Amino acid sequence: MMDLTEITSPSFIKKLDKEQMMELAEEIRKFLIEKLSVTGGHIGPNLGVVELTIALHRHFDSPDDKIIWDVGHQAYVHKILTGRACDFDSLRQFKGLCGFPKMIESRHDVWETGHSSTSLSAAMGMAIARDVKEDSNYIIPVIGDGALTGGMALEALNHIGHEKTNMIVILNDNEMSIAPNVGALHTVLGKLRSAGKYNTAKDELEYILKKIPAVGGKLAAAAERVKDSLKYLLVSGIFFEELGFTYLGPVDGHDFNELERNLQYAKKMDGPILLHVVTKKGKGYRPAEDDKIGTWHGTGPYKIETGDFVKSSSIAPSWSGLVADTVRKIAREDHRVIAITPAMPVGSKLESFAEEFPERFFDVGIAEQHATTMAAGLATQGMKPFLAIYSTFLQRAYDQMLHDVARQNLNVFIGIDRAGLVGADGETHQGVFDIAFLRHMPNLVIMMPKDENEGQHMVKTAFDYDEGPIAMRYPRGNGQGVVMDETLQPIPIGSWEVLREGTDGAILTFGTTIPMALEAAKLLFSQGIHVKVINARFIKPLDTAMLNELFSTGMPILTVEEAVLAGGFGSAVIEYAHDICGKVPPIRRMGIPDQFIEHGNVDELLAEIGMTTQHLVEQMTGFINEQTAERGKV
Amino acid sequence: MMDLTEITSPSFIKKLDKEQMMELAEEIRKFLIEKLSVTGGHIGPNLGVVELTIALHRHFDSPDDKIIWDVGHQAYVHKILTGRACDFDSLRQFKGLCGFPKMIESRHDVWETGHSSTSLSAAMGMAIARDVKEDSNYIIPVIGDGALTGGMALEALNHIGHEKTNMIVILNDNEMSIAPNVGALHTVLGKLRSAGKYNTAKDELEYILKKIPAVGGKLAAAAERVKDSLKYLLVSGIFFEELGFTYLGPVDGHDFNELERNLQYAKKMDGPILLHVVTKKGKGYRPAEDDKIGTWHGTGPYKIETGDFVKSSSIAPSWSGLVADTVRKIAREDHRVIAITPAMPVGSKLESFAEEFPERFFDVGIAEQHATTMAAGLATQGMKPFLAIYSTFLQRAYDQMLHDVARQNLNVFIGIDRAGLVGADGETHQGVFDIAFLRHMPNLVIMMPKDENEGQHMVKTAFDYDEGPIAMRYPRGNGQGVVMDETLQPIPIGSWEVLREGTDGAILTFGTTIPMALEAAKLLFSQGIHVKVINARFIKPLDTAMLNELFSTGMPILTVEEAVLAGGFGSAVIEYAHDICGKVPPIRRMGIPDQFIEHGNVDELLAEIGMTTQHLVEQMTGFINEQTAERGKV
Repeated sequence: MMDLTEITSPSFIKKLDKEQMMELAEEIRKFLIEKLSVTGGHIGPNLGVVELTIALHRHFDSPDDKIIWDVGHQAYVHKILTGRACDFDSLRQFKGLCGFPKMIESRHDVWETGHSSTSLSAAMGMAIARDVKEDSNYIIPVIGDGALTGGMALEALNHIGHEKTNMIVILNDNEMSIAPNVGALHTVLGKLRSAGKYNTAKDELEYILKKIPAVGGKLAAAAERVKDSLKYLLVSGIFFEELGFTYLGPVDGHDFNELERNLQYAKKMDGPILLHVVTKKGKGYRPAEDDKIGTWHGTGPYKIETGDFVKSSSIAPSWSGLVADTVRKIAREDHRVIAITPAMPVGSKLESFAEEFPERFFDVGIAEQHATTMAAGLATQGMKPFLAIYSTFLQRAYDQMLHDVARQNLNVFIGIDRAGLVGADGETHQGVFDIAFLRHMPNLVIMMPKDENEGQHMVKTAFDYDEGPIAMRYPRGNGQGVVMDETLQPIPIGSWEVLREGTDGAILTFGTTIPMALEAAKLLFSQGIHVKVINARFIKPLDTAMLNELFSTGMPILTVEEAVLAGGFGSAVIEYAHDICGKVPPIRRMGIPDQFIEHGNVDELLAEIGMTTQHLVEQMTGFINEQTAERGKV
Repeated sequence: MMDLTEITSPSFIKKLDKEQMMELAEEIRKFLIEKLSVTGGHIGPNLGVVELTIALHRHFDSPDDKIIWDVGHQAYVHKILTGRACDFDSLRQFKGLCGFPKMIESRHDVWETGHSSTSLSAAMGMAIARDVKEDSNYIIPVIGDGALTGGMALEALNHIGHEKTNMIVILNDNEMSIAPNVGALHTVLGKLRSAGKYNTAKDELEYILKKIPAVGGKLAAAAERVKDSLKYLLVSGIFFEELGFTYLGPVDGHDFNELERNLQYAKKMDGPILLHVVTKKGKGYRPAEDDKIGTWHGTGPYKIETGDFVKSSSIAPSWSGLVADTVRKIAREDHRVIAITPAMPVGSKLESFAEEFPERFFDVGIAEQHATTMAAGLATQGMKPFLAIYSTFLQRAYDQMLHDVARQNLNVFIGIDRAGLVGADGETHQGVFDIAFLRHMPNLVIMMPKDENEGQHMVKTAFDYDEGPIAMRYPRGNGQGVVMDETLQPIPIGSWEVLREGTDGAILTFGTTIPMALEAAKLLFSQGIHVKVINARFIKPLDTAMLNELFSTGMPILTVEEAVLAGGFGSAVIEYAHDICGKVPPIRRMGIPDQFIEHGNVDELLAEIGMTTQHLVEQMTGFINEQTAERGKV
């Protein structure tokens, strides 16, 4: 038995024989299944690439040769082989091992990621650098079949094929990205997988080719074209060949011999190679292997023997579920409602919608740009599209939001899921930029509910609203378990709500930070400080009537947001104050500073950046005292 | 002779015979060549689609059938045929006819655009709406070969092919988008154009097919596959067929008979059709036809007889040229410099760089996402990538800037060209959002020079800087003709410059609005008001030392920016003031309000939104008086 924690470098793999490699693979699987049952993590994708990762480190010299993991959630095996097995108890935890490649962890992590479809562009940059420097190292991006349909990956394929740049693209085809894949490319891959598997048909075809009679004269050129055409069948992978790649495969990604033969062959060839490797997501762990819809893509802790997930203690509905169910309820009455997801039917809890309204549900694959502009197209025809999209992935559709949705002022309802800190996924996934990148878009309404009851009313608000695009942010995880109203009631656009009265100062906040604000107000009250708390549920437009009133009191105002401060909600409040006030009232802002926020649980992260009830009490007390002193000075 | 200005609806085209259609085409060409010689505009693309546009309006019933123009600069013929010929004297002028489709102008404009590659997603949205409503209208997106390589168009192709949705995609292939096209797809189209033109080879191939002997037994399946493979040759367009489209073409886009036959055929077929139409950009006007590099894509006024452009009166270098030449100068010394453009080699004036350093120049085609992340990949390997990109197109790479460049803190130099108002292109092209969407990205430096001499030093600053990404904004058009220093000198990061002293108030501004600020200060001085003017050349980081000093005086501060106010530079200044000041000084902001800015010349647009020297003088006077009164109150 091997001790994986003793590995310091992947070089030992080159000396193993095939049996030892298989042993290593088995050890890694056992290790992953065990460790992840405690920490949670991306178990499915990693079990699928055990042999592939071993083979890559055997046949290439990392980090001189650049192995680039697309998306990056499948790099656990790579982390083990590059000396990080000992850190797996802290996987995805605060100050622990990151769930994605991280340059600071290892020189073998040559590219950091988290969002999909970036590997080919990164690889092209690295390949150009190599060629300009006249080096000869290999560049090996590893991209999944799901990520391949992302627009930027296709842009990169087009450019790489054109330049004929040397690189070996590993297409890790597990027939599934996060959810089952969609798209015509998926069909292309399916045909490749079924046709001529392992090239056994080659000989038969050669035979037939020989039977074609020789033709002369004016038919010769045509005959040449026929032979060209037949070559397509022999080489297979026409789609990629058309784009300028040499296609190899399909190869069984769990067979070391197959992998070895093809990698050796690819290393000898010039130009861009696409090696089509077929893997099984969850390979070696039955519950994950049997997964058809993606529940084992990334998980929390589970019981190894049964594959049962350790249940969340919350009995409140998940935010995604609440929103999806309310949309579904409204869709029963309103036939114009269409739901769209870019590859997140499970994460966005849209399965029930899809089942009830199959003709009004569209999973477009990893294609956030297309999803957003398609929603705009629907809206031009009077439909009521609901685009369910994670905050971090909406970043991919910035221009589509601005140029297509907001500029044309179309009635698109954007459900911004996972808004705010998301925790374990870390830097690449925090949903903290959306307010700053959406707030300056003309025509757009942005709102966030304080609890799931207000949330359901906001969904109604969004569908009732017909003066342009409207976005509703909601966080990852579960609601608070509040009582739900029976009847949906739209909320007046731009209206805030006073949750607690006070005269010494005011806290303006929304969404997840409201409980903290109320708690802080209670503590301050016990100290004799009376703080007003306002549910600023519309981030745009602001409730200017309420603000005017507040400003007229001159009381200190603290804005609180689980989002970046630069250009955020607090910034909107002070902008407005400066626009209308001769004498600007004292306003301070609490939120996410100008830095990327690492992984960890949300409470730890908030504590790290000074966003806790205690901080809020201290900041408010200090602020009020300072302003009292300031007034004394005058 | 027809009077084009008498057209009110395209329905008359259905009654024309072929000869009349050819006459109409000729009239339109004459009209365009004449009108655009005065107003300027996108002459090349529009001369290329005269017959195609006539044919589309003949065979479809707009606006029930949806003709969707990708990019939109080729919709002039469509505008003429839908009753707007009389407005062409005001083309692209303030309050005049827009250079792009505009719903407010005509019900025949069913989709607005300006950025490329959106038409297929929009079409998919419209097609889904049609199918849900059980309507039967046609959806006809018209997309160029250049726009097809944009990631979102490829995402849409993948989705449409998968869903098998009914639509007729017109691929308007003129072998050139704005510059000559690049990319493997371009090669695919080239092969299609040359192979089997008009399917003349079909018969010959059928003959050879018949010669393949019948085989039985275990070879039968293989033989079947061979025949499948041969079918590829017969149908041609393998690439699109693989994606689930029925490929038709290539068709001569200037031959009404060809167009008619194929459109009729396409209308009868189910599922997504791709009709490959080959057109000649600039068709019918020799200077534009002969254009090899894209100078006749969009032009200013010209002399019809000679094709000579009416020269700009400015003798100062263009901003694009200045930046490109300085980059080239530095590239001679520094072999790590790589220049990248997404399809704008001419607009970004990178031709000389490309000529001098062909191996270090990359035009990646219309692929802003790939361009940006490729730059990040280059930077990981110690190269010094310079990405030349228009402000409005950088919107397409928001996530790549944030997730790949800024998050990994890589040394990428982003040259943000056409920053600020761009004028005649209007709403879709104004470069006014970049500060608001970049300022909240951690690690990023953003700067803008006051004149071309400072501009060249900033290019040097950018290449010297090695602590992360750095962006330099520069406007459309020419510099001011200032004296240029011989030696390049880096500017300390985050340092501002006092251009004029004053004690009654201060104007903080940068870039194009500096002359206006200095002029206003001079006028105010003549009224006895002494205003300080600061060149806030670093938008991020702010010059906090200078701000601290300024805040301590308590003088009224006005920030001025040719960019959106929400989350912009002024917002950064007031954010900082609230962060550090017990008593916040009076600060007002002048800039672009929360609305999209139409087309017109830049001065007219600035006047419209209240950004002139006169406004500035008035606002500053009012502000200073108000603050004096405010102080009096206390």
